[in-house]
Amino acid sequence: MTIPARGFRDEEFATRTALAQARMAAAGMVGILLSTEAEVRYFSGFHTLFWQSPTRPWFLFVPVEGKPIAIIPDIGADLMRRTWIDDIRTWGAPAPADDGISLLVDLLHGYAARGDTIGVMKGHETQLRMPLGEYERLLAELDGMHVADATEIIRSLRMVKSAAEIEKLSHICAIGSRTFAQVSQFAQEGQPLEEVFRAFRRAALAQGADDVPYLVGGADAGGYHDVISPPTSRPLACGDVLMMDTGAVWDGYYCDFDRNWAIGHGDDASRRAYDVLWRATEAGIAAAHPGATCRDLFNAMHRVIAELDDQGGDVGRLGHGLGMQLTEWPSHCNWDETEIVENMVLTLEPSLSYGAGRIMVHEENIVVRENGAVLLTQRAAPELPVI
Amino acid sequence: MTIPARGFRDEEFATRTALAQARMAAAGMVGILLSTEAEVRYFSGFHTLFWQSPTRPWFLFVPVEGKPIAIIPDIGADLMRRTWIDDIRTWGAPAPADDGISLLVDLLHGYAARGDTIGVMKGHETQLRMPLGEYERLLAELDGMHVADATEIIRSLRMVKSAAEIEKLSHICAIGSRTFAQVSQFAQEGQPLEEVFRAFRRAALAQGADDVPYLVGGADAGGYHDVISPPTSRPLACGDVLMMDTGAVWDGYYCDFDRNWAIGHGDDASRRAYDVLWRATEAGIAAAHPGATCRDLFNAMHRVIAELDDQGGDVGRLGHGLGMQLTEWPSHCNWDETEIVENMVLTLEPSLSYGAGRIMVHEENIVVRENGAVLLTQRAAPELPVI
Repeated sequence: MTIPARGFRDEEFATRTALAQARMAAAGMVGILLSTEAEVRYFSGFHTLFWQSPTRPWFLFVPVEGKPIAIIPDIGADLMRRTWIDDIRTWGAPAPADDGISLLVDLLHGYAARGDTIGVMKGHETQLRMPLGEYERLLAELDGMHVADATEIIRSLRMVKSAAEIEKLSHICAIGSRTFAQVSQFAQEGQPLEEVFRAFRRAALAQGADDVPYLVGGADAGGYHDVISPPTSRPLACGDVLMMDTGAVWDGYYCDFDRNWAIGHGDDASRRAYDVLWRATEAGIAAAHPGATCRDLFNAMHRVIAELDDQGGDVGRLGHGLGMQLTEWPSHCNWDETEIVENMVLTLEPSLSYGAGRIMVHEENIVVRENGAVLLTQRAAPELPVI
Repeated sequence: MTIPARGFRDEEFATRTALAQARMAAAGMVGILLSTEAEVRYFSGFHTLFWQSPTRPWFLFVPVEGKPIAIIPDIGADLMRRTWIDDIRTWGAPAPADDGISLLVDLLHGYAARGDTIGVMKGHETQLRMPLGEYERLLAELDGMHVADATEIIRSLRMVKSAAEIEKLSHICAIGSRTFAQVSQFAQEGQPLEEVFRAFRRAALAQGADDVPYLVGGADAGGYHDVISPPTSRPLACGDVLMMDTGAVWDGYYCDFDRNWAIGHGDDASRRAYDVLWRATEAGIAAAHPGATCRDLFNAMHRVIAELDDQGGDVGRLGHGLGMQLTEWPSHCNWDETEIVENMVLTLEPSLSYGAGRIMVHEENIVVRENGAVLLTQRAAPELPVI
């Protein structure tokens, strides 16, 4: 196993920035103001878990020309200086009276005076990671400035991964696969589900994951009932179907896939559901080639799922993008006409409802290459495995 | 070791809701619309890691009378039905054309027609966990509705913990303390820092943590340079000062404290910095009694820190609230006049800069009782420990 290098070369950030700038120029924007972890990291390389503290806002302004400018709390200055960013403006945060707002006004007031347009992330799957009241105050102080939605610019860039990003994603998917391969060693009848989860996390760390921030699943007689629960202390019992779905990370990049097992023996309905979902995943893999759309992927998987369930359960989509976040654009949905292009990293996540309120989900991770999908995960067994 | 019960009794959510409703009524609000994980969980008990996916917005409306109402994606319906919430309205998300907005308009249009005021979280340390464009669209569709900032109502409730919350916090702090006590067994000269971090996470899980989402720190010759970095692969070397700062969780509640060690031997400057911070923490513990303010705590710690550094480093505050989030209101700062009351759970986190760009941080977690602070963490050694 070769471990990739951590971080990225400065050239990668320069390329990302140049691509964004070309799209900004075409859209008539003088810059994009970012406040969210993934976007700030994407253009700067600033990588810290400190975002988990909601106290302080962080900003990166990507102008239409030149390097991005960081407007951040003092506590991040040392780490930001180790990135490719030169212009770092800091304040002593937290400071409710002025948490970066006057620094932003200094930076942007010239644009406002000229009636220029800046971009912010306002679209689907985005959030505003600063107090809403402060955002309103900023706009009020920048009277005359136009604000446009920059989501499409950022989305179109982030959906297509670089070689270095794919290397990291491939590495964490391999770690996830090796961890799932060990589950039969630590998940046994009688063991409380929360202990199984704890053992899974420890195994993933031993395999080289930096962390396992996301781990959900379920286990119940003849099938589980939802797919987002934390584990209970209920012991695994013969006849259970167990599912674990993990988002493990390495150097800030996620895998996101699951596996299913029967404990002791699998009932017919669960084995049939498993078979349908395994074949739906195959159909998704076959459909994931450049030029297809997310809708095509949805339809390819849905046609198989419909053998058992024409509703498709409550999950709402049959997979999504994957990268710096557990889930990213696009969505394998009937409404998503995003074209699949080379070097997208995607999950294929068919699900169905069966029996009385049971649900089953399969998930694999792929990278799209010139000739079609290449699995990043070790393919799940074709029949429901029994522990 | 007694492990507390997971979750809360319905009465706890009823009490939280009633207290919020009394404050809403006094503020002239007909309800509060929430979109963030901690707030939705606080009033509903809805607990899932699925919030890590940014794709879907989730809403809880707490009306001035009656139980909260959940407006959530289908995928969360099964889990929400297991809480005390009765009125659960769902939609098939993701759905960019209407991700819950028409359900919110249905719920709120009567208030808008009457020109009522609803609260949303707009203040310090808050975020908007839905697309900004969707929020703007919602307001446009609810013409006539007034929006007020509900931060103070939620903040004043969440800052003071219940007996059941304190039990969970005490449990995770004990797990953190037992884990830190093992560090000398797995952190040795020559070991890459990232391996030390991985071993720490595994040890914390073995001690009973559900997860260790936050783990930062540093190690460098004669002292570390920042306190929010991910670990490097640099091996620990004789003369290093090592710091690890962890936010481990149990049942959705955090500990947040750190420990420092010298590898091989500690240099004089670092031992002196350690002594000052240890005594600053003592001063914070002594000052943390009901009736004092956060400013008092700040001043008590700052007076000791000033023996070495009258700036106090880049951290920006000397501790904060602790609970469902790694950091919560209030802040031990000169500007924070929040009165300390019984059953607040707080961190005391004095820091200082010394030497050439080195920084040191100490942190303990306390609960404030009638007669003053009670430590939830096992107190750090009074002198810089050597591994």
